[in-house]
Amino acid sequence: MTFDLNAYLKERKLLVEEALEHYLPPQKGFYNPIVEAMRYSLFAGGKRLRPILCLAATEIVGGKKETALPVACALEMIHTYSLIHDDLPAMDNDDFRRGKPTNHRVFGEAMAILAGDGLLTEAFYLLTYPDLLAKIPPAQLVWISHLIAQAAGFRGMVSGQVMDLEATGKEIGLEELKAIHDHKTGALIRVAVESGAIIGGGNKTEVEALKEYGTQIGLAFQIVDDVLDIEGNPEDMGKNIGSDEPQQKATYPKLVGLNEAKEMAQTCIKRGIHALKPFGERAMPLKALAQYIIERRG
Amino acid sequence: MTFDLNAYLKERKLLVEEALEHYLPPQKGFYNPIVEAMRYSLFAGGKRLRPILCLAATEIVGGKKETALPVACALEMIHTYSLIHDDLPAMDNDDFRRGKPTNHRVFGEAMAILAGDGLLTEAFYLLTYPDLLAKIPPAQLVWISHLIAQAAGFRGMVSGQVMDLEATGKEIGLEELKAIHDHKTGALIRVAVESGAIIGGGNKTEVEALKEYGTQIGLAFQIVDDVLDIEGNPEDMGKNIGSDEPQQKATYPKLVGLNEAKEMAQTCIKRGIHALKPFGERAMPLKALAQYIIERRG
Repeated sequence: MTFDLNAYLKERKLLVEEALEHYLPPQKGFYNPIVEAMRYSLFAGGKRLRPILCLAATEIVGGKKETALPVACALEMIHTYSLIHDDLPAMDNDDFRRGKPTNHRVFGEAMAILAGDGLLTEAFYLLTYPDLLAKIPPAQLVWISHLIAQAAGFRGMVSGQVMDLEATGKEIGLEELKAIHDHKTGALIRVAVESGAIIGGGNKTEVEALKEYGTQIGLAFQIVDDVLDIEGNPEDMGKNIGSDEPQQKATYPKLVGLNEAKEMAQTCIKRGIHALKPFGERAMPLKALAQYIIERRG
Repeated sequence: MTFDLNAYLKERKLLVEEALEHYLPPQKGFYNPIVEAMRYSLFAGGKRLRPILCLAATEIVGGKKETALPVACALEMIHTYSLIHDDLPAMDNDDFRRGKPTNHRVFGEAMAILAGDGLLTEAFYLLTYPDLLAKIPPAQLVWISHLIAQAAGFRGMVSGQVMDLEATGKEIGLEELKAIHDHKTGALIRVAVESGAIIGGGNKTEVEALKEYGTQIGLAFQIVDDVLDIEGNPEDMGKNIGSDEPQQKATYPKLVGLNEAKEMAQTCIKRGIHALKPFGERAMPLKALAQYIIERRG
């Protein structure tokens, strides 16, 4: 059985972007300036990896992808908010993201902070949208929102960014680097898969298997990111490469060498795919997504 | 019937602070740095007005204040996050808040942004805490979280701050000023009362009456803030006074004159108290809180 990943990604990206457009349309009057800034980054050409993973996890356990769409959109909003804030002058001070000027370069620092705040809050507005109650049992909605808040807040992404900033210029070990990335990028990728599985009605064993898949591909994702910062093509990446070196950031290639880092990423992907075994043929999209993570060029 | 407001405020403040301590205790290891920054501002001596209003609204409709405590804490976390971000150099650039150096002055800008992000996310973590499901029906929890996200996000507080920044140095009218403050501070005060009323089991008429109360005291609160910026004592305020003038901020006293502004605040308080009429004797704490808002000195 062949699987056309490119066609799949294209179709799912469109689906997610139509939903984002539906849930955060342009506004008139009072709300226009902030929503314009929020939309600028939300529609700046992301891969939509987290929402696509969420929808695929819903389907693998037998659920309908449409049910998970608002949750998928909320995850993308949280991801986008984190990028806007990470790019700020006080943080990573990045001028470009996905080939476009970063939010604060276009709208100013104050607006960029508020656009991030707005997107983070909007994610929870969406996760608790009354319309969802017709499709998802309220207790499940509460539970998913809780898991997402856990992954996004100080127990996850926020601490990851803090530790990433604190580790810059310091000598850190492999375990510490793994912990930083497990929080900074891993937690949200894992919860994207987990929340999708819960919405789809997955049982405990299925949800656990998919969490393990999420953990492994999340780790691989970050290792590949570090590798691409050395070997990538700036045009594919949409940002400058080699940016880790002058910032004295710890990376996997720096700690274990380039080849060993690539092997580590391969091992993670293998483990992730192994976790999908119980799902048989239905695992095809998530398997292909795992491969995509390691083979991507930007 | 007399009502000892000072004793009431003292007792409620303690109750809220114990709950905040319970829900956001100090952390060890990885989570320590960010939680330290979050706690610094969360325990910097706020009046706890929003949580106290929330608890009082629960009680006025016959509910138990303990049930509303996590929601009250979430509201205080959102309020605190907004203060941390508003104080940032890119925003109002304030050095002091409640008599203490602002978050970014102590922890640096990056950490202050992340501490705000962490508190905002933690609020939704708390609002969806599984323990709550034993006390609050899940659909109600979803609805309250939705209303709070609405009040805090671009439909409320975030846009208020955006418009406040955009209006600085510009000529604006009274209606515009009211709209800015209704979003910036009014929305969260209103939803504090509204969510408390919903948790307490208030019927539609009761919730509407309390929303009107919330709207009126929220407006009065902001007018009094502007008046205190002219007439207040810096020691009571915990921040410099006269800060609106050099920033060329539109204020009520500037637009309508000092006396007229004071009268406007009185009228709001009267309207707010009028909305409490159906509650009879049980309205005592909320009446006293309305009076407190107009008589406060800091």
